[in-house]
Amino acid sequence: MSDTPLTIGIDFGGTTVKIAVVFQSDIIDQAPPIATQDFDGCDALIDEMVKMVEELRSRHAGVAAIGVGMPGFVDFDRGLVYHLTNVRGWDAVPLKAILQAKTGLPVVVDNDANCMGFAEWQCGSGRGLSHVVFITMGTGVGGAIIANGQMIRGARHGAGEIGQTSIDYQGRAGQYGNLGALEDYVGNREITEMAMQAYRAAGIEPTEEACSPAGLAAAAQMGEPIALAQWDMVARWLATATMNCCWLLNPEAIVIGGGVARAGELLFEPFRKHLFAQLSGPFKDHLMVLSAAFGHEAGTIGAAALAREELAKSV
Amino acid sequence: MSDTPLTIGIDFGGTTVKIAVVFQSDIIDQAPPIATQDFDGCDALIDEMVKMVEELRSRHAGVAAIGVGMPGFVDFDRGLVYHLTNVRGWDAVPLKAILQAKTGLPVVVDNDANCMGFAEWQCGSGRGLSHVVFITMGTGVGGAIIANGQMIRGARHGAGEIGQTSIDYQGRAGQYGNLGALEDYVGNREITEMAMQAYRAAGIEPTEEACSPAGLAAAAQMGEPIALAQWDMVARWLATATMNCCWLLNPEAIVIGGGVARAGELLFEPFRKHLFAQLSGPFKDHLMVLSAAFGHEAGTIGAAALAREELAKSV
Repeated sequence: MSDTPLTIGIDFGGTTVKIAVVFQSDIIDQAPPIATQDFDGCDALIDEMVKMVEELRSRHAGVAAIGVGMPGFVDFDRGLVYHLTNVRGWDAVPLKAILQAKTGLPVVVDNDANCMGFAEWQCGSGRGLSHVVFITMGTGVGGAIIANGQMIRGARHGAGEIGQTSIDYQGRAGQYGNLGALEDYVGNREITEMAMQAYRAAGIEPTEEACSPAGLAAAAQMGEPIALAQWDMVARWLATATMNCCWLLNPEAIVIGGGVARAGELLFEPFRKHLFAQLSGPFKDHLMVLSAAFGHEAGTIGAAALAREELAKSV
Repeated sequence: MSDTPLTIGIDFGGTTVKIAVVFQSDIIDQAPPIATQDFDGCDALIDEMVKMVEELRSRHAGVAAIGVGMPGFVDFDRGLVYHLTNVRGWDAVPLKAILQAKTGLPVVVDNDANCMGFAEWQCGSGRGLSHVVFITMGTGVGGAIIANGQMIRGARHGAGEIGQTSIDYQGRAGQYGNLGALEDYVGNREITEMAMQAYRAAGIEPTEEACSPAGLAAAAQMGEPIALAQWDMVARWLATATMNCCWLLNPEAIVIGGGVARAGELLFEPFRKHLFAQLSGPFKDHLMVLSAAFGHEAGTIGAAALAREELAKSV
């Protein structure tokens, strides 16, 4: 057996909680997913998580630590989960302390996008780089920032919220009062809504499925002009927020993951075009635009990798 | 005498080159300013700079290093100055190597906004903090980023260019093709132009001086409504770019300097209002908005401080 320890990664989502045993960047075992919304408060859900962790540990005695990615703001140092928007009964939960007490293992808790970004930087598309901007595009748009070879978490562990940055100072108000937030343009639901409107304006009554990112990707693949135009707009909005990151941080690579990014070159090709047209030499000459290496499993792999890193630091 | 060495700071501007001997954060002696535009190429101007440096050294034998702040992109590691927009004959000049050879002293060369930000972080308004966004507002709008207690320079030393970030994806094209660049809204000249238009729209033919940032500050101080409205717009645009920095980097403090910032609370009060209205708790609860400690002398003090730091590293 190698020196790399086994760790458990927990990806806490609005729909399911996924728990897996990870070795390096491979999931070697996993528990059945827990349906998040079946639980009214945090106590019973945490107990269920602990039960799954213990089942996995009964099969993998070497598990040395646990990492958890949460869909909301986390006090990383204290392992405290602030309010979760989409899950009932999670307010100021000291998740790290609770899980440590119940499992006897070291626990690290971070924002889910930070976990995914960490996975990409440590063992995915951003491996070996020192300056990376990671963006995850799904229902929400999140991110993580690596600069000078370190995760940048900021004063209150909130850094990396690219989805909340503005691309239009006159845009509509987002959930935090922020005008023109990227997430309100290129989130899953917003892409679908915008496509519905575009088709209707052309006299076509589309299905919601046809207007989902997956539906739009299929149509664009066949050369359907409205779908192609939608991807170009999404790329343009995303490029604005990304070029802001480039002017501010001058990264070596932009790594993009999440469901929406599965459109691949339909998104990446116009994205590169809009991005590179708005940067000068030192900002674009060596800039890489990369697709994330990990898909659905990025959260668990990243949380497990974070746990491994914290373990290494504590030795 | 203390252990803190004397260093020379050079602030290379489009109009003048300022050269000063600095002890800690105090200028203790300075050379007569050199008129940048009197020189056609870099060779004669560098010779003049060296002459001034040697004059200062003849009075201060303890000078141990030289720092230079340049108004353009700099390869910090190699001390190479790329193209300067506003000064003739400066293309790919290995300034660090030239000055080292001519003076026999260690030399460090950086972007001027980085120097000013470094001064504020090391011995000004951002002293003792680990996460700072510095913004300088003049003819150009520049910045510097401190995160995890380090200057963030990025892959090609370009980081911190907040003036090039976009506040409107549909805005007009800036000098690098970037649409809606902050600098094109809140730069000195742009503020003046916008005020001229606002006064004319109200049937008033103003002087250009009355529409300069200083003129507008004087009018706003007396409660003149058009001038007050102009400052509110400038604050709103600046707040959009700054809130983007906050969502991305979650700093402890925003430090604002430069000529335009001399408007003081006329700018800062509406700026805080627009900024805090667009941030959630962890991003604003402890966020400080600070005026820069140094004025015209920020560039020389910062360049000298950088030289001191590089000297300390090399020991």
